[in-house]
Amino acid sequence: MRPSGRAANELRPVSLEVDCNRYAEGSCLAKFGHTHVICTASVEESVPGWMKGSGRGWITAEYGMLPRSTGSRTGREAARGKQSGRTQEIQRLIGRSLRSVVDLTGFGERQIRIDCDVIQADGGTRTAAITGAYVALYRAFQLMQEMKAIGAIPFTDQVAAISCGIYQGSAVLDLDYDEDSAAETDANFVLTASGKVVEVQATAEEAPFPRAELDAMMALAEEGVGQLAQRQREALGVA
Amino acid sequence: MRPSGRAANELRPVSLEVDCNRYAEGSCLAKFGHTHVICTASVEESVPGWMKGSGRGWITAEYGMLPRSTGSRTGREAARGKQSGRTQEIQRLIGRSLRSVVDLTGFGERQIRIDCDVIQADGGTRTAAITGAYVALYRAFQLMQEMKAIGAIPFTDQVAAISCGIYQGSAVLDLDYDEDSAAETDANFVLTASGKVVEVQATAEEAPFPRAELDAMMALAEEGVGQLAQRQREALGVA
Amino acid sequence: MRPSGRAANELRPVSLEVDCNRYAEGSCLAKFGHTHVICTASVEESVPGWMKGSGRGWITAEYGMLPRSTGSRTGREAARGKQSGRTQEIQRLIGRSLRSVVDLTGFGERQIRIDCDVIQADGGTRTAAITGAYVALYRAFQLMQEMKAIGAIPFTDQVAAISCGIYQGSAVLDLDYDEDSAAETDANFVLTASGKVVEVQATAEEAPFPRAELDAMMALAEEGVGQLAQRQREALGVA
Amino acid sequence: MRPSGRAANELRPVSLEVDCNRYAEGSCLAKFGHTHVICTASVEESVPGWMKGSGRGWITAEYGMLPRSTGSRTGREAARGKQSGRTQEIQRLIGRSLRSVVDLTGFGERQIRIDCDVIQADGGTRTAAITGAYVALYRAFQLMQEMKAIGAIPFTDQVAAISCGIYQGSAVLDLDYDEDSAAETDANFVLTASGKVVEVQATAEEAPFPRAELDAMMALAEEGVGQLAQRQREALGVA
Amino acid sequence: MRPSGRAANELRPVSLEVDCNRYAEGSCLAKFGHTHVICTASVEESVPGWMKGSGRGWITAEYGMLPRSTGSRTGREAARGKQSGRTQEIQRLIGRSLRSVVDLTGFGERQIRIDCDVIQADGGTRTAAITGAYVALYRAFQLMQEMKAIGAIPFTDQVAAISCGIYQGSAVLDLDYDEDSAAETDANFVLTASGKVVEVQATAEEAPFPRAELDAMMALAEEGVGQLAQRQREALGVA
Amino acid sequence: MRPSGRAANELRPVSLEVDCNRYAEGSCLAKFGHTHVICTASVEESVPGWMKGSGRGWITAEYGMLPRSTGSRTGREAARGKQSGRTQEIQRLIGRSLRSVVDLTGFGERQIRIDCDVIQADGGTRTAAITGAYVALYRAFQLMQEMKAIGAIPFTDQVAAISCGIYQGSAVLDLDYDEDSAAETDANFVLTASGKVVEVQATAEEAPFPRAELDAMMALAEEGVGQLAQRQREALGVA
Repeated sequence: MRPSGRAANELRPVSLEVDCNRYAEGSCLAKFGHTHVICTASVEESVPGWMKGSGRGWITAEYGMLPRSTGSRTGREAARGKQSGRTQEIQRLIGRSLRSVVDLTGFGERQIRIDCDVIQADGGTRTAAITGAYVALYRAFQLMQEMKAIGAIPFTDQVAAISCGIYQGSAVLDLDYDEDSAAETDANFVLTASGKVVEVQATAEEAPFPRAELDAMMALAEEGVGQLAQRQREALGVA
Repeated sequence: MRPSGRAANELRPVSLEVDCNRYAEGSCLAKFGHTHVICTASVEESVPGWMKGSGRGWITAEYGMLPRSTGSRTGREAARGKQSGRTQEIQRLIGRSLRSVVDLTGFGERQIRIDCDVIQADGGTRTAAITGAYVALYRAFQLMQEMKAIGAIPFTDQVAAISCGIYQGSAVLDLDYDEDSAAETDANFVLTASGKVVEVQATAEEAPFPRAELDAMMALAEEGVGQLAQRQREALGVA
Repeated sequence: MRPSGRAANELRPVSLEVDCNRYAEGSCLAKFGHTHVICTASVEESVPGWMKGSGRGWITAEYGMLPRSTGSRTGREAARGKQSGRTQEIQRLIGRSLRSVVDLTGFGERQIRIDCDVIQADGGTRTAAITGAYVALYRAFQLMQEMKAIGAIPFTDQVAAISCGIYQGSAVLDLDYDEDSAAETDANFVLTASGKVVEVQATAEEAPFPRAELDAMMALAEEGVGQLAQRQREALGVA
Repeated sequence: MRPSGRAANELRPVSLEVDCNRYAEGSCLAKFGHTHVICTASVEESVPGWMKGSGRGWITAEYGMLPRSTGSRTGREAARGKQSGRTQEIQRLIGRSLRSVVDLTGFGERQIRIDCDVIQADGGTRTAAITGAYVALYRAFQLMQEMKAIGAIPFTDQVAAISCGIYQGSAVLDLDYDEDSAAETDANFVLTASGKVVEVQATAEEAPFPRAELDAMMALAEEGVGQLAQRQREALGVA
Repeated sequence: MRPSGRAANELRPVSLEVDCNRYAEGSCLAKFGHTHVICTASVEESVPGWMKGSGRGWITAEYGMLPRSTGSRTGREAARGKQSGRTQEIQRLIGRSLRSVVDLTGFGERQIRIDCDVIQADGGTRTAAITGAYVALYRAFQLMQEMKAIGAIPFTDQVAAISCGIYQGSAVLDLDYDEDSAAETDANFVLTASGKVVEVQATAEEAPFPRAELDAMMALAEEGVGQLAQRQREALGVA
Repeated sequence: MRPSGRAANELRPVSLEVDCNRYAEGSCLAKFGHTHVICTASVEESVPGWMKGSGRGWITAEYGMLPRSTGSRTGREAARGKQSGRTQEIQRLIGRSLRSVVDLTGFGERQIRIDCDVIQADGGTRTAAITGAYVALYRAFQLMQEMKAIGAIPFTDQVAAISCGIYQGSAVLDLDYDEDSAAETDANFVLTASGKVVEVQATAEEAPFPRAELDAMMALAEEGVGQLAQRQREALGVA
């Protein structure tokens, strides 16, 4: 029995609210239960110096948490003067995940910056961030298309992410904070709507685990990402 | 005529939504038009070392802006590794403003950290932050009272803040970004519900201005803070 | 009765020694009693990148205190690796104050850097800094004029600054450290010789204060700045 | 055909030279082909403050690369003043990997710091680091045992790591830099000698990949880690 | 012929003004020609943690330059967020030089911080700083003696410093900036009044130099330090 | 009697292994007894901006120590976020020493970066670094010559370095850590093969020392550098 009462393969209530920010070219407030993440996509009309003349664009991501997004207050990274290793890991993951499903030659020599800011955190912030960032980026591409800046929307696939874990010996989907703290194993899956792998990160929290458990978590993740991809399409109003 | 069509003494639509964060001891989402600020109050059961044994508590504040809260993206302070001078000025102002209306001997040797994070910025973020922070802090005191941690709520007065400016030669209340950019003079007033001064900061943006303009702005500010104080009381459900 | 024995409207002995530094284009050692500030103006033959081609110059300021300028030693900011919020607030204030009385189109695409370094601090360092910085900048303009780099001196007005406070219930002018520590209210006024307002910063140190006190402090400040402006003219040998 | 001419399941020449450092409690120079990593284990007789009295020890890791370990020189992190996101990711991974196979109650309230410094880099530095760090830590435990500081060696399992990739459509083991740069997919596997999973990190470098490829890489990794575990036992002179 | 017209063994005009700062326990404004350095000694009633209980005190030094102490403005280290290698070298040298002539057991478990701040720089700032710092420290010891905090003044010798160089093939004493820029070799000598060596730093600026030149510079330095030591005694009013 | 049993004028076993790094244009592993330093020379095809068009190249150096190169672990500078004053002093010394024996107009507008990384430290790391860096730089010049990038090798002299000290009253050569810790005086000599002085740094560790001791140490250093220069030529296979 999960603390939340959910079935092993049951997502938390998911909501993807597009255009939550009036300035960003694309934005989405992603909620996975009590985990709330504001995702924005900001389009800049130039690329970093090392890419000039390449004919390709670039997508990069930054991630942050409001100090009191967490149960007890976390020190503000801007005040400490540096981003934690965890923050950097997550923002690199978000950037890679999006770039893997975009044709970088398809939107000119532009840089798109994704910002994922966690307003409230109850586990799974990186997976909500990736799932919402896809939507924000899609909205930005739609705007660019509308403005005739690009022809087609340069996504080559659709991406979303979900966590799984081994909780009291069983694989479960979409861990909240209580489950995450108690899980024996924790894994994050970034998958495409078509079932391909973008990124898998599985970590033994307490002790090494048998490969069968990885397979069980992967199966749950495929199911979960399928549902998330459906929510993304609904939020975007695309088939 | 103001760009927004408002009368000179007219506030933007104001909303103060209490308990917007499920973890903080007190919280308030303050909206002044399109300026949206999440304010939280976090209670810690100890004070900084230099205050130990003093019998007094302490209140401090931090301020931040999401990178895309602004019309064009602003670099993330955590990534740059330092807080700007502006950020530090504002967070010092918020802390001073709240401490000036609280009896620091009235809540034990505790530290309360106020976080004001701007989700969307259309001018007047510091005044929205102070106005919302008062509400968040009030909610935290109410919770402490409920938990029998304190007897009475230790506010000695009620505080709110509003900006004024000289726009096209006339004093106007509660500048939005368009007005702020074009104003000849800009001033922020932190006042109490009873009309006393907590802090005045008036700055000539273009050229020195006559003292009469300061007086005109002050009069508008007194009117505006009176209305904000009423909204605070409504949000908190107190007389 | 003030600790210093001064009358309520009495400045400390003021001295403005021009050309205290043999290298700077303009310099002034400003003394307000035991508060001593070295002010220099350094002219650079280019502006920051974002101003290139604008036909305008720029004036910026930095502020610092020697570690033992204060009664007990203050840590060196260069050793700590960052400037405090207070330092940044003050240097921003000095820069704004000077820019407000200079025609930025009147000295070409040059940047002038003002450095205000406190050698000894007994309260009122920012007001001594602004008052001395005006003189240093004037000297730099005179030198530029002499060198035929500019035609007229591009000041549009004359600026000086003074602090006021409410000490034991009465408004007093030009607080020294002892008064400042004990004052109920503290305000800094940056005014022009002609009585206009450049910047007002008034802060309740202990409790919110009635508006009448702000008015009383303003009246003292006008009187004090009048005298400081006279000293500036004498130091510069201009009418 | 691989650039190196190796078979798909063939490791580069592996060498694990114990006691390469005369001061560290344990040390190992790990070579995977031209990738050379100095691994040291330093035992400290106390734990971080938050662990005091817990009866448990702690293991943490740091990672670095000499500037010219790489084909073209990489800027020195100490000179830049911060560790990159990549560095932080890797050192967190090394620490987690070792902790997952050690009984933290088995060596008292001590902290062991692992340092992995890359002297020469030809791909796979993190896997060489983990494989060598296990040996260095084992040597430190042996020394502690010899000194009667601990009874049994507190490893609960044996850990090593290897990379795999999809190169020209086929899964291959232990990528060198040339292969890594050209690989479509890149994965790092931290596994135990008994075949359990400690950590899996698989990343689509170019495009999402089918799950079957993950399975193929996993199978190669199991084979490779088996061989590495044998080399570790030989280097340590244990069964 | 030297640019300054001085004889090869001639110091610039030297002035050592004691008690230039009203707060520091000891202070001295040291002038070597146009090089002006404020030196203060600040006594703290405790030592760094690692010295507690040792019965010994500690002396440490910091060094800084005002931005416009130099012919063209130098960036402020506090603004850049770090002290340069040169600054660190000099402040370490000042600290070592003073500690070498003080009995660290002779003033209790106290830390004395020396601050040397260059107000105007015309070459030889480190030697003026050491020479002035000795005087400032002596004044602090005198005050401590007067306050009965110590019995005897714990200096074991008297220290001063001077630069020498090879200028147009000849050894010269006390280089000013013009000579320093053009010198083939530059050396700093920290010597005692009794002619012993505290520190020698000799550097080939252009090309390696014969040992005879080092000997010639040393001879000049001994003469110069003899004169400086006399000035120190005069400034202090001791035999 | 020295702890190591060496004669007063006896170097530790010295080894200079060229080409220890497969990527650097030049490299040398310098061993002075248990002190081991990897020295690399990296050639960049451009100079810093301020040298562009000067027709001259530049040589700069960086220095670091692996955390466990020392008897007890030293914190990693990259993790602390800054290089110590000692590190900066040493890397500036290495750069100056090499530049003093190179014709900077002799290798085009290129920058050569020297990296000296201490793998194991038993005293004398800076002297081993300079001695090895000369060899690494020579190898880089040889490669450039071979590639026809330069004509002649632009060294104007040959440089090496050694430490001396006063240990139990006698001058001794090439201090190891045990001697260094106990020495009364410590000096580093950077000399040319022809006996000229590049840099002398002598420091009283405990008390000022007579000039005769400096002379005695200098004599030992001349002897030691003569031997080191011979080893350099042997390692390089030049006469």
